[in-house]
Amino acid sequence: MIDVRAITFDTYGTLVDWRSSVLAELTAFGVTHGLRVDWVAFLDDWKAGYRPGMDDVNAGRRPWTTVDALYRERLDALLAARGLASLAPEAIDHLARVWHRLRPWPDTVAGLQRLKRRYVITPLSNASFAGMVHLAKFAGLPWDCIITAENARAYKPEPVVYRTAIELLGLRAEHVLMAAAHNYDLAAAQAAGMRTAFIPRPHEYGPGQTTDLAPAGKWDVVVDSVEELAAALGA
Amino acid sequence: MIDVRAITFDTYGTLVDWRSSVLAELTAFGVTHGLRVDWVAFLDDWKAGYRPGMDDVNAGRRPWTTVDALYRERLDALLAARGLASLAPEAIDHLARVWHRLRPWPDTVAGLQRLKRRYVITPLSNASFAGMVHLAKFAGLPWDCIITAENARAYKPEPVVYRTAIELLGLRAEHVLMAAAHNYDLAAAQAAGMRTAFIPRPHEYGPGQTTDLAPAGKWDVVVDSVEELAAALGA
Repeated sequence: MIDVRAITFDTYGTLVDWRSSVLAELTAFGVTHGLRVDWVAFLDDWKAGYRPGMDDVNAGRRPWTTVDALYRERLDALLAARGLASLAPEAIDHLARVWHRLRPWPDTVAGLQRLKRRYVITPLSNASFAGMVHLAKFAGLPWDCIITAENARAYKPEPVVYRTAIELLGLRAEHVLMAAAHNYDLAAAQAAGMRTAFIPRPHEYGPGQTTDLAPAGKWDVVVDSVEELAAALGA
Repeated sequence: MIDVRAITFDTYGTLVDWRSSVLAELTAFGVTHGLRVDWVAFLDDWKAGYRPGMDDVNAGRRPWTTVDALYRERLDALLAARGLASLAPEAIDHLARVWHRLRPWPDTVAGLQRLKRRYVITPLSNASFAGMVHLAKFAGLPWDCIITAENARAYKPEPVVYRTAIELLGLRAEHVLMAAAHNYDLAAAQAAGMRTAFIPRPHEYGPGQTTDLAPAGKWDVVVDSVEELAAALGA
């Protein structure tokens, strides 16, 4: 029924557990520097700066800016608000790059390795291109190539991001499957003519997550892991 | 003296032996279809269409066109000139994609694997993005990412191609090393501020090759193989 040649993956949340990875580094950062900070609230604040920054780019209110720069701006502001801006610059630089050091979910690497034998596999993330390269090296994600929002200089769910990926892959849209843990991403991919696979990650946002627990559209595939996606696609 | 973080590789000629690979397929194609053709001359003609097509794009005389399309145009013209345009379309389609099925030089894969442990490694080729993905899968090139002329919608040696790679890698130009078997490519990379490594491939064009046998500029590194490049860079 579906004839897939390539699979594009959302990455933060879908393939890597950003929340527990970043919380672990923030906590260690606090111990190293003798800080008393509510790191759960700090991370919530940090992550909350992500979407408005991207929306500003998509709306033309600011020029193209990578998420690395957006996260860095927000981090500097959060540290300043807590009187922590005078920490060693190298320590802050290192912390800012924590988004390149995120652990994969347990099924991610094995599932991607299976899929790679039969399909072209690539991220299609709002990460920076370089950030996605570094994350792949850190987490062992065996991509065939890297495609991110930076290749389109716009952020998902702008249609041009999906169109750019389809064009770079040299395929018709219906031969490309978007896999994501987020319904909004799949809705945009489907609108661009792509096939869709929903892989819910009910713990992405920690305990008490209320969003993206179930499919909110007619997705082609709904599975609980990347390994199940491989099985569903015969890989 | 040089502080390299990422290495961009020319691919056709530098990493893969396009000539013997394509000649072998052309010869087999001739046997399968019972054709009497001088395949060496045919390949010379085919390859000769490559640079003028790219120059037309760079000069704005034609819109962005992938090398896959340029090679296909030329192949159709060459077959037609020999009265062979009526061969099965699937056979011609398959032959046209021979540029995605090129054998690496003996030192290529081992050298890249060593370099990948310490550096970000990517092609920076005039190939199409999808073509480079397929070639990597065929030849086992263990890239961290794929960057080609298609990401800049212009062909080497246009400066924008090198600038696009540097920007996507998120690095300063002097931290990116261009490795190539072709002096013109290194001259353009150096002009863009990149470091340069010359890896001559004296048999790329077959017996009697007269070009690119020796360095024609002050390149940072001159070595005879990708494995020697890895050794020179401490990888």
